[in-house]
Amino acid sequence: MTTVEEAEKLVLAQLKDYGTETTPFEQATGRVLAEALKADRDLPPFNRVTMDGIAINYTALQNGINTFRIKATQAAGEEPIAIDELNECIEIMTGAVLPATTDTVIRYEDVEIRAGLASVHVQSIKQGQNIHPQGIDKKQNDVVAASGQMVTPAIISIAASIGKTHLLVKKPPRVAIISSGDELVDVDQVPSAYQIRKSNSYTVKAVLEQHGLSPQILHIPDDPEVTKQQIGHCLENYDVLLLSGGISMGKFDYIPQALEDLQVEKFFHKVAQRPGKPFWFGRHKNGALVFAFPGNPVATFMCLHRYFLPWLRATQGLAEQLPLYAVLSKDFSFQPALEYYLQVKLASNPKGQLIASPVEGNGSGDFANLADTDAFLELPLERNEFKAGEIFRAWKFV
Amino acid sequence: MTTVEEAEKLVLAQLKDYGTETTPFEQATGRVLAEALKADRDLPPFNRVTMDGIAINYTALQNGINTFRIKATQAAGEEPIAIDELNECIEIMTGAVLPATTDTVIRYEDVEIRAGLASVHVQSIKQGQNIHPQGIDKKQNDVVAASGQMVTPAIISIAASIGKTHLLVKKPPRVAIISSGDELVDVDQVPSAYQIRKSNSYTVKAVLEQHGLSPQILHIPDDPEVTKQQIGHCLENYDVLLLSGGISMGKFDYIPQALEDLQVEKFFHKVAQRPGKPFWFGRHKNGALVFAFPGNPVATFMCLHRYFLPWLRATQGLAEQLPLYAVLSKDFSFQPALEYYLQVKLASNPKGQLIASPVEGNGSGDFANLADTDAFLELPLERNEFKAGEIFRAWKFV
Repeated sequence: MTTVEEAEKLVLAQLKDYGTETTPFEQATGRVLAEALKADRDLPPFNRVTMDGIAINYTALQNGINTFRIKATQAAGEEPIAIDELNECIEIMTGAVLPATTDTVIRYEDVEIRAGLASVHVQSIKQGQNIHPQGIDKKQNDVVAASGQMVTPAIISIAASIGKTHLLVKKPPRVAIISSGDELVDVDQVPSAYQIRKSNSYTVKAVLEQHGLSPQILHIPDDPEVTKQQIGHCLENYDVLLLSGGISMGKFDYIPQALEDLQVEKFFHKVAQRPGKPFWFGRHKNGALVFAFPGNPVATFMCLHRYFLPWLRATQGLAEQLPLYAVLSKDFSFQPALEYYLQVKLASNPKGQLIASPVEGNGSGDFANLADTDAFLELPLERNEFKAGEIFRAWKFV
Repeated sequence: MTTVEEAEKLVLAQLKDYGTETTPFEQATGRVLAEALKADRDLPPFNRVTMDGIAINYTALQNGINTFRIKATQAAGEEPIAIDELNECIEIMTGAVLPATTDTVIRYEDVEIRAGLASVHVQSIKQGQNIHPQGIDKKQNDVVAASGQMVTPAIISIAASIGKTHLLVKKPPRVAIISSGDELVDVDQVPSAYQIRKSNSYTVKAVLEQHGLSPQILHIPDDPEVTKQQIGHCLENYDVLLLSGGISMGKFDYIPQALEDLQVEKFFHKVAQRPGKPFWFGRHKNGALVFAFPGNPVATFMCLHRYFLPWLRATQGLAEQLPLYAVLSKDFSFQPALEYYLQVKLASNPKGQLIASPVEGNGSGDFANLADTDAFLELPLERNEFKAGEIFRAWKFV
C-alpha cells in the first residue's frame, strides 16, 4: 500500500502554473503575489517629522541658544518653511517635511511656548532626533515585497503606500467538488428514511473558500452514462476534481469505470492511513487532477488538509508551510499498521509548548466531534503505542 | 499612565449585543452562531453500513454456516431488503440501511463470490461489525452545535446534515475606519513631494474583513467644522469608530476637540506601551465606541490585534482566545518603562515549542518589516532585559 510519505510526494509532483491575473489591491488578501512590489519613491519620501513640536538647527543649542522665535507653523502635507537665523524655529507637526534649514525636532512636552517664543527646558536633545530620514526604510525602486508570497494585510499596506491599485496575483486552479450517489439529497430536501443529506461538498467548499478558491459543487446520480458524461465535462472545464465518495468496490460506484474510460491515469489508490485509506489520486491526459477522497466526512476533511492544501500552496509557488509540532497529552494506542490521524485540540502551555489533547469520536466520521478539535496529530504507522509527552507533527485546520 | 492590563480591562468592559441576523449557511463561515443546532433525526438516522460487502445474520456463523446465497443487492438510498433464511445474505453497499433481519456486514475483501454464492474465508468476524448504529453520534433533538461559537467548516457540515439552510448568527458591529490629515492622498493619486498615500485604513479594513466585518473607510480633511460634522455623522451611524492618527498634540488635529464637543467620554489616553502609546479610547453617550489609534502604521496594527479583535470576540459572545506562549530566541533589551511589542517570526521546533525570532525594523512604523513577521511578543514593562530561552505571550496576526 502507498505510504503517506509516498502519496504526498506523488501529489506534490503534480504542480502546474495556472497563470496570473490582475486584481484590485483591496481584494487581494489571501491571494499569491505574482510580481515584486517596488518602491515608487524613497520610503519615507522625505525627512519626516515624527513628533509634534519645534524644528531647530542643532548648532543653535551648541552655541548656547535655548529660546527660539517661532517663525511659522508648518503642518503635515505643507511645503517646508525655512528658518533664516539660528535663533528661529518652526512649529511643526507629525508627518510634516523637515525644513532643509533645520535638523532636529523637539517635542512639545520638552518646550515652553509663550508670546511667540519657544524655550527648551531639557538637556538631552540629540541631533537628528524625532526624524524618520528619507529613504531609510527603502530606496526608490527597491523591492518592498517579493513575488511568490501570500498577500497579507501588511502587504496591502505596502501596496497602498506605493500606489499599486492593482496587483498581479496567481490565478487559482478551477476546482469542481463532486459528490455522487442516490442516497444523498440536497440540504433543503427532506431525506427519506434511507437517505441522508449532502454535507461533505459544503464543508470542502467552505475550506477552499478560506483559501481563496471559488469552487463549483456538482452532484452525480447513480447512472453510468450520466457519470461518464459529467466527469468528462469536468475534466475539460476544471483543473482539479475533488471527489468525495464513489471510489470503492461498491456495485453502484460508476466513477472508477468512468475515470478509466476517460483515460485518467491512476497514481495511487489506497494509502496506509486512517482515516482516508481509500484515497485515490490521478491525472487526466489534459492535465486535470483528480483527488478522489473517501466518502467518510472526517476522511475527506483530513485528506483535504494533508494533501490538497499543501498541493495548492506549492502549485501557486508558495514556500512549504513550516511543520508544526505538538506534545501528546495522554497515552494513546492504535493497532493497525496505518498512519493514524488523531483528532486533537491544541493549547499553548506556559513553557511555550503546544499541547495536543485527543478528542476522540467513534471513528465513524462524526463531524460533531471534529467541531470540538482544531488539528490532526500525525501518529507514525511503524508504532502502535504513543505515550503522553511524546511529540508528533500536527496538522491544524482551524 | 494607563497600563496595558488596565487598558485591556476598560476596553473589554464595553461589551454590547448588536443583535442577530439570518444568513444562508454556505455564507456563515467565520460568523458567530447565535442558536444551538439540533439534530432533526438520530445521527446516523439508521443503522448505516460502512463497507461494501454482504450483510448476514451473525447467528448463521455461530451455526457453522459459511456460504450464503445472495438474495439481492441493496444500494445506498434503497429500501432495505430482508433475508428469510439464515443461509441468505444481501450484497450491500456503503451508506445503505442495514436490513432488520441482518446484524453484521462482511467486506468484499473477506468473501469469495461465485455463482450467486458468497463464501466467507476469514475467521475473525465480529457481530455488528461494519455498521454505524442509528443514533450513536446524536439522538434526535440533541444539540449538535452549541450557540456562541465561531462557524467553521465543521459547523457548516453539521448544518448541512441536519438541513439547516439558514443560520441565526450574531450581527457584527458596524465599523467606520477614519483617517485624517491633508498630508494623505488616496492610493490612486500621485502625492506631492510633501504628501504620502493613505495605507493604514486599507490595512485595518483587510484585517477586519478577515474577521467577518464589512467596514467603511472615510477620510477627514484638516478642517474643524468638517471634522466635527463627519465624526458626528459616524457616531450616529456606526457602532465603532476606528481612528488612525489625529489624536495628538498637533495644532491641526481637530479630532480631540470634535470628540469633546460631541460628548464622547474618554476612558483613557496614552497606554504604557510601545508602539501605540498615544492610544485613546472612549464612548459616545449613544453607545458608539471610539478606538483612536496612533497614526504610526505598526502601532495601529498592534492596537488592532491587542485590543480591538479581543473586544470583537467578546462583544459577539465568543470565549476568550487561549493565550499563546513562545520562547524568545535571542537576548533583547528595551529601556523605557513601557510594555514592548516585539515583532517576531514564530516557528515550531521538534520539542513542540514555539520559537519567536525577533525581526526588528527601525521602530519607525516600517511596514515592509512587519510583512516578514507573524506575531508580536509581549515583553513586560517591569523589565528591561529579556534573555534567550525566556517565555512570553505572543499575539499572532497572520
